[in-house]
Amino acid sequence: MSELTLVVGSKNFSSWSLRPYLALAHTGQPFREVVVPLDTPETAALIAMHSPSGRVPVLKHGDTVVWDSLSICEYVAEAFPEAKLWPEDRAARAMARSVTSEMHSGFTALRTNLPMDISARKTVPGLDAPGVHADIARIQGLWAGCRERYGKGGPFLFGTFSIADAFYAPVITRFVTYGVPFRPENAAYRDAVLGLPAMLKWTEAARSEPPLARYR
Amino acid sequence: MSELTLVVGSKNFSSWSLRPYLALAHTGQPFREVVVPLDTPETAALIAMHSPSGRVPVLKHGDTVVWDSLSICEYVAEAFPEAKLWPEDRAARAMARSVTSEMHSGFTALRTNLPMDISARKTVPGLDAPGVHADIARIQGLWAGCRERYGKGGPFLFGTFSIADAFYAPVITRFVTYGVPFRPENAAYRDAVLGLPAMLKWTEAARSEPPLARYR
Repeated sequence: MSELTLVVGSKNFSSWSLRPYLALAHTGQPFREVVVPLDTPETAALIAMHSPSGRVPVLKHGDTVVWDSLSICEYVAEAFPEAKLWPEDRAARAMARSVTSEMHSGFTALRTNLPMDISARKTVPGLDAPGVHADIARIQGLWAGCRERYGKGGPFLFGTFSIADAFYAPVITRFVTYGVPFRPENAAYRDAVLGLPAMLKWTEAARSEPPLARYR
Repeated sequence: MSELTLVVGSKNFSSWSLRPYLALAHTGQPFREVVVPLDTPETAALIAMHSPSGRVPVLKHGDTVVWDSLSICEYVAEAFPEAKLWPEDRAARAMARSVTSEMHSGFTALRTNLPMDISARKTVPGLDAPGVHADIARIQGLWAGCRERYGKGGPFLFGTFSIADAFYAPVITRFVTYGVPFRPENAAYRDAVLGLPAMLKWTEAARSEPPLARYR
């Protein structure tokens, strides 16, 4: 079997890296991890060693190099179908891909004003920036909608863990970091994601990162 | 068979709508089209009638509603596998998904400064904005790289038409609109995309849109 290597950025900050990490961890496949500290003088050169796009995350699987968080997740879902990273039901899978893609290209106000910073607990003026409240409301509505329609078989958006949960995990950490209240019906979902073994491991690693990488 | 309806925005401007349109047209399946004029007082209300995310494009297939350009393309690829909307080779498919996802979430400088405006021919100060040249160089390199590695079987990025071509079609129109020179090795690729029957039909419709929708 070909070796798997996932190249990620600083765990405290790289929301795009966390997503494929959770998906890959869910497969149970052993994989090597390379962490590139972000925002250092060496960052660009280190990333260029691994990444055709000049960005992390990147997955290497034997000779195949896959980049971009969503493309990596799709690749992993295809390579390890037994992990069922997308819902098996056609309509559920369509909705899972829709909410995942919406996260992948959207929610710019949230992403810009409330950057992922797992270890921190703080308030920011950005909470009042235009569009942030709309993004937060839309996301909480999405979560509740997925859970209500497809969440009968487990605590995740589509029951069992899927790529959609991997994509919203960084948003859950943002809400915690910046004190955004969760709608009551989303509290159990939040706890399920934060309690994933891979999530606990990533969070612990984020807390252990040196201050240089943690405070930019 | 369930009816297919694709809801799109003004054809001259809605780059996100053009992508799933080209993918769906490639399947040869009959589909109904609903065009929502953008930037009018009624736009938001019209879109809300169709779209859970408040945005176009949206695909309806029987009872299933799929939104976001990439999610729609993945759905169409699964629903109509005979159209081979992703390359059959595993490594080629991984690269096709990577370049598609990179377009889906990236190239912000290009998208912001050179918005799609199919009918126009103009120069803009935005051509010198930070990041625009880097985006243009990266994209032209991607095209040449895909063509060189996987383009032997036809004129498109991965030989035959794929979702990757659908995703870069609006970029090709932008280069034409703003007079961005194509690298010589990409000229045949440009012509192949611009010459697609569905692309010609979309372009013709864009040219026929009323000025109110065309000039914002």
